[in-house]
Amino acid sequence: MSAIVQPEVRVLAAQLPLHLGNTVTLKGWVHNCRKMGNLAFVVLRDRSGMAQCVLEGALADRALENESVVAVTGRVVAAPKAASGVELSVSAVTVISAPTMALPFEINKKELKAGLEAVLDHRVLSLRNPKLHAVFSIQAALAGAFREYLANEGFTQIFTPKIVGTGTEGGANLFPIDYFGEKAFLAQSPQFYKQMMVGAGYERVFEIAPVYRAEEHNTSRHLNEYTSLDVEMGFIDSEEELMALETGLLRHMFGRVGESCAPELALLGVAVPEVGDIAHIPMAEAQAIILRTYGKLSPKGDLDPEGERLLCQYVAEAGKPALVFLTRYPREIRPMYAMPAPEDPTLTASFDLLFNGLEVTTGGQRIHRPEMLIASLRSRGLSPESFGAYLELFQLGMPPHGGFAIGLERLTARLLGLANVREATSFPRDRTRLTP
Amino acid sequence: MSAIVQPEVRVLAAQLPLHLGNTVTLKGWVHNCRKMGNLAFVVLRDRSGMAQCVLEGALADRALENESVVAVTGRVVAAPKAASGVELSVSAVTVISAPTMALPFEINKKELKAGLEAVLDHRVLSLRNPKLHAVFSIQAALAGAFREYLANEGFTQIFTPKIVGTGTEGGANLFPIDYFGEKAFLAQSPQFYKQMMVGAGYERVFEIAPVYRAEEHNTSRHLNEYTSLDVEMGFIDSEEELMALETGLLRHMFGRVGESCAPELALLGVAVPEVGDIAHIPMAEAQAIILRTYGKLSPKGDLDPEGERLLCQYVAEAGKPALVFLTRYPREIRPMYAMPAPEDPTLTASFDLLFNGLEVTTGGQRIHRPEMLIASLRSRGLSPESFGAYLELFQLGMPPHGGFAIGLERLTARLLGLANVREATSFPRDRTRLTP
Repeated sequence: MSAIVQPEVRVLAAQLPLHLGNTVTLKGWVHNCRKMGNLAFVVLRDRSGMAQCVLEGALADRALENESVVAVTGRVVAAPKAASGVELSVSAVTVISAPTMALPFEINKKELKAGLEAVLDHRVLSLRNPKLHAVFSIQAALAGAFREYLANEGFTQIFTPKIVGTGTEGGANLFPIDYFGEKAFLAQSPQFYKQMMVGAGYERVFEIAPVYRAEEHNTSRHLNEYTSLDVEMGFIDSEEELMALETGLLRHMFGRVGESCAPELALLGVAVPEVGDIAHIPMAEAQAIILRTYGKLSPKGDLDPEGERLLCQYVAEAGKPALVFLTRYPREIRPMYAMPAPEDPTLTASFDLLFNGLEVTTGGQRIHRPEMLIASLRSRGLSPESFGAYLELFQLGMPPHGGFAIGLERLTARLLGLANVREATSFPRDRTRLTP
Repeated sequence: MSAIVQPEVRVLAAQLPLHLGNTVTLKGWVHNCRKMGNLAFVVLRDRSGMAQCVLEGALADRALENESVVAVTGRVVAAPKAASGVELSVSAVTVISAPTMALPFEINKKELKAGLEAVLDHRVLSLRNPKLHAVFSIQAALAGAFREYLANEGFTQIFTPKIVGTGTEGGANLFPIDYFGEKAFLAQSPQFYKQMMVGAGYERVFEIAPVYRAEEHNTSRHLNEYTSLDVEMGFIDSEEELMALETGLLRHMFGRVGESCAPELALLGVAVPEVGDIAHIPMAEAQAIILRTYGKLSPKGDLDPEGERLLCQYVAEAGKPALVFLTRYPREIRPMYAMPAPEDPTLTASFDLLFNGLEVTTGGQRIHRPEMLIASLRSRGLSPESFGAYLELFQLGMPPHGGFAIGLERLTARLLGLANVREATSFPRDRTRLTP
């Protein structure tokens, strides 16, 4: 018999090779169980990965159901055919918790054979499939790297309210809340608050928080609640600094994911793009490119989803990753706080970032002069009186500033080539889905 | 004349000593301006701190209003009387943005002379006061250290929905939302979702996100929206592991704040407590201590706010920081998912953490057996049928697990000795406050 080295202490599946020759305990879920003669081969899955366990004789006769939670004690032995080079020769098994319902689908196949609705209805089970599981490990790494980069650049994390008295855009697309009998709304963005925190002297701020859009459309790229990675920065000269910041930020986020999520990326067959310099293309030029190259007309002053896809295809064809800053949007399709372009006041110093065919960021320089903001509000038929605390911000000494917001789910979906943004949302909320 | 070293590039106030002898530009807000003869002394404030600027002759005659945003170019010269040892001998001033309203209160005094309502009504201005400003720099550091510690311990950050179909506790204290004509609610905690992500195989998860309590009471310790630092962990043997985790976590968070926010802590006159071992006191014993030591009776199975304060005073009197885990709450005052205590099923394997007189955490082991959970729901008159997706979690193979949640604003307030939790909330939401 082998020397027993603290067998009661749990070891993770990924650490098994470090314990060759020792007796250890693994805890996790039964991923699958194959019987061959008087042997049973159990693949145990835990948060670190998988490990093969071999059961003999009476132990092999025990029925271990898939997705049972088990503790398995045994000796770590060499197994040249196993991916890790080791397996567990089991001396004891404890079933901690067995399923008490029939599994609605099998999750231990490489590809999950279930439709998106079933996947989302049974989210706990579907996320046990290694490929689906990997999506949210990568998403967490993206959020962590976002924070890390900005903290290093002198940005302060802020926490601003999601219950608001009025919307940033004047009231459309807002979910109403009954707030102790008063009407309030869910914030569609932390826009006003991040600007206020810049003006409060933090200068550089970021927020990672949910935002809400009561949009009726139910497409593969819309969510009614999503996680917004928000950035706002004071003392800028133009929106060029914001695009430079976002370029450096994405370089860092993608680099970190490449380093820390290599197994997950390999499982998904995804190569993280090298973010070099990202092209800046003004809207008018983008429309001309699409017309010239693909014979496609665009709506006035904007690209439609097909146009966004084609522009990404165009920049990717030049051998670069499909990332492009689309700049110089016309004022009428941008928010009232968008800074006019210096050379043409009908355009704005704003931008979107398109990534693999989809808008993942909206940003730009903001108006910081109160008289200009009041004129902008009036030109849209909005009453300056209803923007009290926001207007006060600009009357207290406000530097030139701007920022951007990245949709975390969209970024994740585009990076991983997921067709529907819901696949990059743990528990999506859409026009028809409120559960789980 | 001095050699001019890229004077157009902005330097931060805190970096000024590094540029002795050079000509540089500072940008920030005029904190105050004193005239003495033909000199003017301007204190400029930016995100890094303050710097003294000396203006002579015609420059000194320019009226620089407090809170104007300015760019100031000059030569860095030695100034033995200045705290930093240097000051800026100014050769050019540009006013970028001057206030266009009278300031509702002065923020350049050590202590802000304004009531809490005015402070919150004019939040942008009040947060420019260095002491108030420091609070949210420290809060950001606490949140960053929370994330850092847990990521190192193998925890995955999760992002779960705040729009929910039903509440975790059965419907009380929820804000209703009109969700496309259907009734939905704002989540009072991510409890169900963090348990689901444990069961989805992430095992160890954390979330930093807003939660909502539609509580009518308007006290110095209640907010209707606050930031919850949530943790959930699978494969635990008991709630002891959770308290050990939180102890290590707080040690790290307080340690990090001590290192990275030394100037802010000094300004506030706060010494971060050394978190050693934190006492665990069962509720019955805590009530006996309070009765014996302070002659105070407690409500059945609980402490009232005064009791919480006294218990903290008691542990602090033993020479320790005022931190205490209060354990073994009775089942009837804990949620339906609280695991019964192994030695007495009328008690729970749950705990609160009290810090300087106030509850800052609630946590505990959760029920992971479906039949036990169904019995618990029924005993409270709740219908298992209305907990569909949550119940499914326990039917799919679920390990023993538990977790806790720290209120970020309460933790900040208690650490910094702020009397009202609103002082640790950038834009608080309470019974009567929806703006700014």
